[in-house]
Amino acid sequence: MKNLDKLFYPESIAVIGATEVKLKWGSIVLANILDGGFKGPVYPVSTSRETVYGLKAYKSLKDIPGKVDLAYVATPSHTVMEIMRDCAENDIRNMVIISSGFSEAGGDGVRLEQELADFARKHAINVVGPNTMGMSNLNWNLFGTGAHPRPVPGNISIIAQSGNVGNQIMLWAELEGFGIGKFVGSGNEAVLKVEDYLEYYNEDKDTGVILIYLEGVDDGRKFLDIAKNTTLKKPVIALKAGRTVGGSRAAASHTGAMAGSFRIFESVMRQTGIMIAMNPTELLELSVAFDSFPLPKSNRVGIVTLGGGWGVITADECEERGLTMPPLPDEIRNKLDKKLPPFWSRSNPVDLVGQPDVALYKESIELMVSSDAYDSVIVLGIIGSASFGIRPLQATNRLGYISDDEMRRIEEGSAIIEKQILDTILTLMNRYHKPIYPVTMAAFPDNEIMHTAEGSRYKVIVYKTPEMAVLCLSRQYLYSRYLKMRGSC
Amino acid sequence: MKNLDKLFYPESIAVIGATEVKLKWGSIVLANILDGGFKGPVYPVSTSRETVYGLKAYKSLKDIPGKVDLAYVATPSHTVMEIMRDCAENDIRNMVIISSGFSEAGGDGVRLEQELADFARKHAINVVGPNTMGMSNLNWNLFGTGAHPRPVPGNISIIAQSGNVGNQIMLWAELEGFGIGKFVGSGNEAVLKVEDYLEYYNEDKDTGVILIYLEGVDDGRKFLDIAKNTTLKKPVIALKAGRTVGGSRAAASHTGAMAGSFRIFESVMRQTGIMIAMNPTELLELSVAFDSFPLPKSNRVGIVTLGGGWGVITADECEERGLTMPPLPDEIRNKLDKKLPPFWSRSNPVDLVGQPDVALYKESIELMVSSDAYDSVIVLGIIGSASFGIRPLQATNRLGYISDDEMRRIEEGSAIIEKQILDTILTLMNRYHKPIYPVTMAAFPDNEIMHTAEGSRYKVIVYKTPEMAVLCLSRQYLYSRYLKMRGSC
Repeated sequence: MKNLDKLFYPESIAVIGATEVKLKWGSIVLANILDGGFKGPVYPVSTSRETVYGLKAYKSLKDIPGKVDLAYVATPSHTVMEIMRDCAENDIRNMVIISSGFSEAGGDGVRLEQELADFARKHAINVVGPNTMGMSNLNWNLFGTGAHPRPVPGNISIIAQSGNVGNQIMLWAELEGFGIGKFVGSGNEAVLKVEDYLEYYNEDKDTGVILIYLEGVDDGRKFLDIAKNTTLKKPVIALKAGRTVGGSRAAASHTGAMAGSFRIFESVMRQTGIMIAMNPTELLELSVAFDSFPLPKSNRVGIVTLGGGWGVITADECEERGLTMPPLPDEIRNKLDKKLPPFWSRSNPVDLVGQPDVALYKESIELMVSSDAYDSVIVLGIIGSASFGIRPLQATNRLGYISDDEMRRIEEGSAIIEKQILDTILTLMNRYHKPIYPVTMAAFPDNEIMHTAEGSRYKVIVYKTPEMAVLCLSRQYLYSRYLKMRGSC
Repeated sequence: MKNLDKLFYPESIAVIGATEVKLKWGSIVLANILDGGFKGPVYPVSTSRETVYGLKAYKSLKDIPGKVDLAYVATPSHTVMEIMRDCAENDIRNMVIISSGFSEAGGDGVRLEQELADFARKHAINVVGPNTMGMSNLNWNLFGTGAHPRPVPGNISIIAQSGNVGNQIMLWAELEGFGIGKFVGSGNEAVLKVEDYLEYYNEDKDTGVILIYLEGVDDGRKFLDIAKNTTLKKPVIALKAGRTVGGSRAAASHTGAMAGSFRIFESVMRQTGIMIAMNPTELLELSVAFDSFPLPKSNRVGIVTLGGGWGVITADECEERGLTMPPLPDEIRNKLDKKLPPFWSRSNPVDLVGQPDVALYKESIELMVSSDAYDSVIVLGIIGSASFGIRPLQATNRLGYISDDEMRRIEEGSAIIEKQILDTILTLMNRYHKPIYPVTMAAFPDNEIMHTAEGSRYKVIVYKTPEMAVLCLSRQYLYSRYLKMRGSC
């Protein structure tokens, strides 16, 4: 195994091609590293400047006084070979080559890239790229990409065969509040390939879930072996782009990847335990679910809902995705009989018929999650019901029949209720080690999407739609079944 | 045809069971009507109060001095029959019966509902419900439901066999800024049924698109005839819940609807031209797309993208949904050859390889939409690229190398660019009458989701994901093909 430790956890960084010229890669990447708060020394290398962004600049890598662990390169392609030789001479064993103009450009670029790859292998230099969006390690305060998304640090690590898609996923993660660990845009994969990153992430203690955007793999056998090994340890979620003829054609003109038959890919993936996402949204959402919820032991789901219609919709989604909804045990039915109006559903989904009763919400959720009949619970519309439910009171307030003071108290109370329900779900997950998926009645702009607490093993993700909750739960079940099959659960 | 005009456009309203007791239906609905700004007189009816929310209250419908067009009823079920008799005597021909405790409760409720339905038919009273979330007409300042969502007025009218799902869709519409026309929760459908509302919406000049949440239909034949007639005039989008065994079981315990085979439903729907949604999100999104974009004449799509990866993903989605991506005409290729770096894709998708050049964006979009080779265009990542693209400059500003004043100018400039691109798309749609679907690089919290202008025939919806854009476009194509087949396009 290649040792990529100093690539992802460098003590010091050089940026070759550093400049203050706006929107040049050498400016963008350096600004990202500095603004991102990297803790070690950063050495700009510039042939023309004395300082860049207030840092002393060096004419060449040779002139840098200290040890350099990692070099970012953002200079024209024809200059990169010489820079790599300088790296070798100065014992710099890790490079991120942002520069384009290599195999993706055809012609001379192909030869340049081959030369570069041969040299790197000979001198044991780890190379990300060329033609990469860059590499970041958020657990190391290192933001080293050509775009500036800023998710919070977390345990989901990304390998992207498209920098553009990868960065977008990073940006979505930022906007939703999802935590990301490492990000690498693999670029042309002249030296380090998707399977090398996968192998490294597998051993990486900061990585809990691995997210891959895949267009193609050179060494399928090796990728599969590593994948099979990795999924025993942590979940791997992959989106394979280029699964249709049109998509493959687009992929060929993008990264030159040859897309094979998606059916074959799918069945091979099933053997490796990699979970497949069909689009970038699913890719991120699945990764977050695996990072947050305990795995369900079976496909038996209990549903608690505030309204009948949503229960029906969710039941459809569950059944279509291979989850089952076993009938309500007598014990639960008898207990709820005492709490609910006579016309309640008496079945799974448990329809709480709109009762605004927080104690009842908590009790029903616990009845379901503690029952041997269910290994997971979906909770529909309880989150969000307090915020939405006080709207009639806000109207009454506007009509002048509830004082502003009282209204404020009611609004504060409703926020407390929302939080209590999230806390209840979190507590119950930690107690029973079963996933409880809440779907919000409506995602208000200031709602928490991810909820956790000090010392909690799990996180609660609040879903905007039942279909996304069911998709994530069903993939968690598939993974759990896969692990059982491999004898590892 | 039943005349439901005074139901949906009443000049005056009575609310029976009006009260100031918080969170009782008689308070919630009245507060909604008053706070919603209904223009005509509103008469509370209360056996115990002199006034309710500052309005004189009447002991009975008989005591109301003026003509009443519509009565909302929120009293216990055993009192409703007498109220209906009062309605008949006072020539009130439209009732919205919020009260529950009818057929959904079983036992006596079934008999009560039958009695009520017989009487209503005999006396030509239009009845919404019973057991309904209510009815609203946003084009008439009438908010008459038991929940308080507040979307802007628009042309999408809703029929919901679950008040809970319907209200949630209304709330989503509010949060996304999508315009809604009418909303009716059909409840137990004792008198007026889903097909009656469909028939009315078909004739309704304020309704452009019809959205239906369906659990079951009593008179399938009638529903299909009306649907077939309606889709010739305006798009109808339906979500059928209870399409699996588990879902049907849940539906049976919810509204008592018997769900048939979804396959049969699907094939029948195909004949009627109703477009099928698979979940509530799709239901709303499809309705909004039909309400906003021109219909494509064929399935030939041109794609313009800022990054290769997203182009691949979108190409996959297109092909999987029956859309085709014809190759780039020489004329367009030659024109773009002069503008783009030598290694550009030269094919469809057109990959602008990240060039930050607004004039180029506009020109490429126009080249594609004006070409005979394409009947629709998907634009990936151009919207949002200015807001995201200035982040490196914001970092440089934080590092102290761009002044705050200059940064403010840059940020204003970027907002102007975002708007210019939206305006360009809108202008081009109005010029070529082809849909142009933009997908944003990332949905920043303060981004516009819907963009239009005075006098524009169309609206631009900014999609958060390529898959939703492709889904909507593909359904627009199916509808366009359906209309052609029926000889009406």
